[in-house]
Amino acid sequence: MKLYDMTLAPNPRRVRIFLAEKGVSLDMPQVDIAKGENHSPDYRAINPRGVVPTLVLDDGSILDESVAICRYIEGLHPEPNLMGRDPLEMARIESWQRRIEFDGLFTVAGVFRNEAPHLAGRAVQGDAPSTPQSPEMAARCRTLLPHFLAMLDRRLGESAYIAGDRITIADITTLVTVDFAKWVKVRVPEEHANTRRWYAEVSARPSAKA
Amino acid sequence: MKLYDMTLAPNPRRVRIFLAEKGVSLDMPQVDIAKGENHSPDYRAINPRGVVPTLVLDDGSILDESVAICRYIEGLHPEPNLMGRDPLEMARIESWQRRIEFDGLFTVAGVFRNEAPHLAGRAVQGDAPSTPQSPEMAARCRTLLPHFLAMLDRRLGESAYIAGDRITIADITTLVTVDFAKWVKVRVPEEHANTRRWYAEVSARPSAKA
Repeated sequence: MKLYDMTLAPNPRRVRIFLAEKGVSLDMPQVDIAKGENHSPDYRAINPRGVVPTLVLDDGSILDESVAICRYIEGLHPEPNLMGRDPLEMARIESWQRRIEFDGLFTVAGVFRNEAPHLAGRAVQGDAPSTPQSPEMAARCRTLLPHFLAMLDRRLGESAYIAGDRITIADITTLVTVDFAKWVKVRVPEEHANTRRWYAEVSARPSAKA
Repeated sequence: MKLYDMTLAPNPRRVRIFLAEKGVSLDMPQVDIAKGENHSPDYRAINPRGVVPTLVLDDGSILDESVAICRYIEGLHPEPNLMGRDPLEMARIESWQRRIEFDGLFTVAGVFRNEAPHLAGRAVQGDAPSTPQSPEMAARCRTLLPHFLAMLDRRLGESAYIAGDRITIADITTLVTVDFAKWVKVRVPEEHANTRRWYAEVSARPSAKA
């Protein structure tokens, strides 16, 4: 089993942090997205969609969706638990993890993919048709981010971690989102004391450097 | 336990079909989104975000994210299995279910929310700030849908159902997506025989009327 990875990109980082929290190490060949290696014939032979991260199983089949990769790892290595121990906890964690993705991670990506000069003509990832960047979309996402960050600070005022009293996949997605937001020059406001308390703790864990 | 529902909307339909496949019936109070009931003080007291579906548990706490609600129901009522029996199958189903969501359901929603006259100023759902519709975004999503439908037809040429040889949550998300696309006048092309074979079968199941 090996994980095709790209150190700088946010989605592979989610999986690396998840693996580090589990204490699992995998062979992780690097794919240089900036050089377009993910669209090379060699990489397309591994994953026709050209996305990272991609987990290649021992039978050669792949999983190329970050949360699905985490779900598989959770099943193989149940401890420490990061996705819930019973149906209700699993549902609560998934609910938070998806809310952070939809309102946070995807919104940051909506700014980044529609603004970054090297993504001109590739505003939609994967094997989508060439798509021009949309300044209207980038502007909308920039308008929504303060709303997301305010929600995050309220949540972390009522809960030690995103989905409850221990670290879960929802915290990993949030950490990656907050760090990714810096790429588009959006930062947690000084007055968001709850988020700053949480960020200081979660970003100091060894897994955050994975 | 009860499920706040809105018959016409795609996300509540996902949960209703899931429940019907499980043979589970719940009290389902209706929330009239067209009349803005989801933003009324009464409904906001139940769910401050004003979204449906919302599952209210017996302790009054809520789950308001469709796939998380399904995950909880799957845990309470494991048979028939719709989300996977072992770690790899769970991961494969989740991978497909998310791909259909991101490339299909959210893309249809990107057209609908940015075009529907009654959503002017509310292009982003939930408790997001008032957001103007983006014709640029609607146009982009319209351009991407044929790519999604072509992928779908290829997939259904190699597999009886979306995620393998039996119906799963991924088929439910796909059925809802294909029907939702009709709202924006996008239909499965006549020549997509694989999708048409699958659609005829899945839409004829009693659950499709739930």
